[in-house]
Amino acid sequence: MAVRADLNISLDGFATTTDQTPENPMGLDWGRLVEAYVSTRTFHERVLHDTTGAGTTGVDDDYAEAYFAEVGAEIMGAGMFGLHTFPDDPDWRGWWGDEPPFRIPVFVLTHTARPSLEMENGTAFHFISASPEEALERAHAVAGGKDIRVGGGASTVREFLKAGLIDQLHVGITPILLGRGIRLWDELRGLDTGYTVTTETAPSGIIHVTFRR
Amino acid sequence: MAVRADLNISLDGFATTTDQTPENPMGLDWGRLVEAYVSTRTFHERVLHDTTGAGTTGVDDDYAEAYFAEVGAEIMGAGMFGLHTFPDDPDWRGWWGDEPPFRIPVFVLTHTARPSLEMENGTAFHFISASPEEALERAHAVAGGKDIRVGGGASTVREFLKAGLIDQLHVGITPILLGRGIRLWDELRGLDTGYTVTTETAPSGIIHVTFRR
Repeated sequence: MAVRADLNISLDGFATTTDQTPENPMGLDWGRLVEAYVSTRTFHERVLHDTTGAGTTGVDDDYAEAYFAEVGAEIMGAGMFGLHTFPDDPDWRGWWGDEPPFRIPVFVLTHTARPSLEMENGTAFHFISASPEEALERAHAVAGGKDIRVGGGASTVREFLKAGLIDQLHVGITPILLGRGIRLWDELRGLDTGYTVTTETAPSGIIHVTFRR
Repeated sequence: MAVRADLNISLDGFATTTDQTPENPMGLDWGRLVEAYVSTRTFHERVLHDTTGAGTTGVDDDYAEAYFAEVGAEIMGAGMFGLHTFPDDPDWRGWWGDEPPFRIPVFVLTHTARPSLEMENGTAFHFISASPEEALERAHAVAGGKDIRVGGGASTVREFLKAGLIDQLHVGITPILLGRGIRLWDELRGLDTGYTVTTETAPSGIIHVTFRR
């Protein structure tokens, strides 16, 4: 029953992109950062609901598959759900649509109370004001003995890392230089000494780094 | 006839270490950062003058060997030679001893004039006050058609990268988090778009990333 985190970052360590415009609300950088991940068969199935078998297999897909496997509950920051985008709209249901890829209880960290949001596919968003430790306690209680995933964003994952609460961290490093955004690695000097670190590259060029206790 | 650069950096992008003390003038971090590189057979031969055949072979050694191959002249910053350490001592001959591993002309960038320093093994240090472009011109003139290496330190390499003067950059990324020091990647947003970038890992865990025009 491990606490896991998983992020895509650039070679210079940025986990967010900054080139969004009104005309291109995702920006161009985000697509480059996650291109290999969204090309996987697992992403096609789980996120795009594409059951034709399309998508890449191999190293990148193995990590994508592991990302979804054996997770019993998820914790995410308010921004990853979408609360920062329309903070004053109580009807805003976040970025994830009617078929979020989680299919498990998801705890969204926010100081603003909201009723839970339960989807038909098993995803249930619970909005809680909690410390990392308290959020993990809530998640463990409903995870059925499976892993907890701290899904993001980068600041949330870093907060859990700094608190020593992550058992396994996987980063997929895309060899591009974004130059600005939120750096995953800030204030984590020496983090590696508490883990066994392994590295592997995929034919796509993505560098997979895994920290395991 | 390419201009090449090559550095060891941490997973969080630092090319220098900061834990030096009077008792431990190298610090502990430097050893961790370069451990795989200094373990190679090429490093044993070229830098330690160990001709017993000791040292690792394989991926890390292949990059180490390529580092020394086909280089006709080197450019380095004043700090890499050692001028920042004893700036007022005109007799200080730098870090590199009587058998520097270069065996070629080396241009040391400094605003303080010094006579050239010629070693028996073919290494000749020339101290020049020059822009990156001027330094390259000087180096090309004596490189005999071979490659120019911009040896370091990190700030010097970054200056040449920013000026668009590096044809091939190799970084060996050690999967440790140093948290502070000089970041190679600062102010290099989009650098990758001018290169083909390849990635490879070694059994040591080192991630080798190469930018080629």
